Amino acid sequence: MSTQGRLIGVGTGPGDPELLTIKAAKAIENADVIAFFAKQGRSGNGRAIVQHLISDRAELLPLYYPVTTEIDKGETAYQSQITGFYDASAAAVAARLDAGKTVAILSEGDPMFYGSYMHLHVRLAHRYPTEVIPGISAMSGCWSVAGMPIVQGDDVLSVLPGTMAEAELTRRLADTQAAVIMKVGRNLPKIRRALESAGRLKEAVYVERGTMANAAMIKLAERPDGAAPYFSLVLVPGWEASR
Amino acid sequence: MSTQGRLIGVGTGPGDPELLTIKAAKAIENADVIAFFAKQGRSGNGRAIVQHLISDRAELLPLYYPVTTEIDKGETAYQSQITGFYDASAAAVAARLDAGKTVAILSEGDPMFYGSYMHLHVRLAHRYPTEVIPGISAMSGCWSVAGMPIVQGDDVLSVLPGTMAEAELTRRLADTQAAVIMKVGRNLPKIRRALESAGRLKEAVYVERGTMANAAMIKLAERPDGAAPYFSLVLVPGWEASR
Repeated sequence: MSTQGRLIGVGTGPGDPELLTIKAAKAIENADVIAFFAKQGRSGNGRAIVQHLISDRAELLPLYYPVTTEIDKGETAYQSQITGFYDASAAAVAARLDAGKTVAILSEGDPMFYGSYMHLHVRLAHRYPTEVIPGISAMSGCWSVAGMPIVQGDDVLSVLPGTMAEAELTRRLADTQAAVIMKVGRNLPKIRRALESAGRLKEAVYVERGTMANAAMIKLAERPDGAAPYFSLVLVPGWEASR
Repeated sequence: MSTQGRLIGVGTGPGDPELLTIKAAKAIENADVIAFFAKQGRSGNGRAIVQHLISDRAELLPLYYPVTTEIDKGETAYQSQITGFYDASAAAVAARLDAGKTVAILSEGDPMFYGSYMHLHVRLAHRYPTEVIPGISAMSGCWSVAGMPIVQGDDVLSVLPGTMAEAELTRRLADTQAAVIMKVGRNLPKIRRALESAGRLKEAVYVERGTMANAAMIKLAERPDGAAPYFSLVLVPGWEASR
């Protein structure tokens, strides 16, 4: 019987290579195979963060998303294509695990927190020895670089997608001490209106490119509407004492 | 003019020394002063995690909480004593910063996420060059060690204190895809009832001592009521596909 390989979901953090954990760095250095999701023709953001740690003898296994920009995400055709892609990706990883290899799957931020890694985890973790190494999430990188105490004591924190309907976003923003709004992008004008209706616009901070070298942050009230990257965030601090 | 010192809030993560970031490890190794909060007569949990990194030439600055167990937290006497303690702690740190020292303040988990460090940050960050180095939060350590995909896609995550009134806890648990319940301790029976009323008990997982060597996790439905450590967590996963 051959020795079974090991699956490791590795959080690569919010962008700064020094914000990788020691455990993640070791796992990447020692892996036989480094797998990562990427857009067609791109080298993958998670991989760029850890490029300096990848051994010359490691196999690189890029998992390229199918080109689906012309199909609406709600459509069955999209769902079927993306499910097929995750199944095929899991099979490619499983082939390496069956050969006794240690496979590290890179995951930007924290693997279990909105990470693509989870699609492989649910397909493989029950079949192979698996470890998940947490990473610093984008939101944590952002509130740290902003020097913003986000929650204290008995504060409630709500993590909300900016894709949500305006009325629901408004209701939730009015019903929490602190909030992180993800997936800002073209939802920015709606997010601003919801924050204003909820009486929280004054405190809100807009953060772009988190802990990348070219990070930018500004009070949302002072930022004009208009194009925002999809991965920008809006932070609303709790903690009365910090206001 | 003397050179001004530098204040660094350092996240020491959820317990496993390898879950420290590379940046945090370097900051601790190079600091002139290592400050940390601790109970009287204790050496501090954050310090225990990083003990092996602290240089022999560094000054250790323990900040001992006043003994206040006999005073109710809601009382003015408690508030005044704890505020005085944070003021005095900030003054002790400021004295080192004025002498040009680099002071690392250890903070378990993530400094800006329910961390004591914030009490020093709000008193000192506007007066001295300051950096905050994020850490892996206890909740992230817990869902990673549990192998639990917590949120995906457009899921809402609610971080809720277990101290909350039962009706409000129930309402919020019924109104979110995923939840993390902090401060479990003696609130466990109430938390269980709230999860049951909200129809979420079956999915809930109880985690004790997160990523410590002696971590324990169990489906909450299978755990008897009774004493739970204050720092245990209850996780309720979102993401339909993972159920």
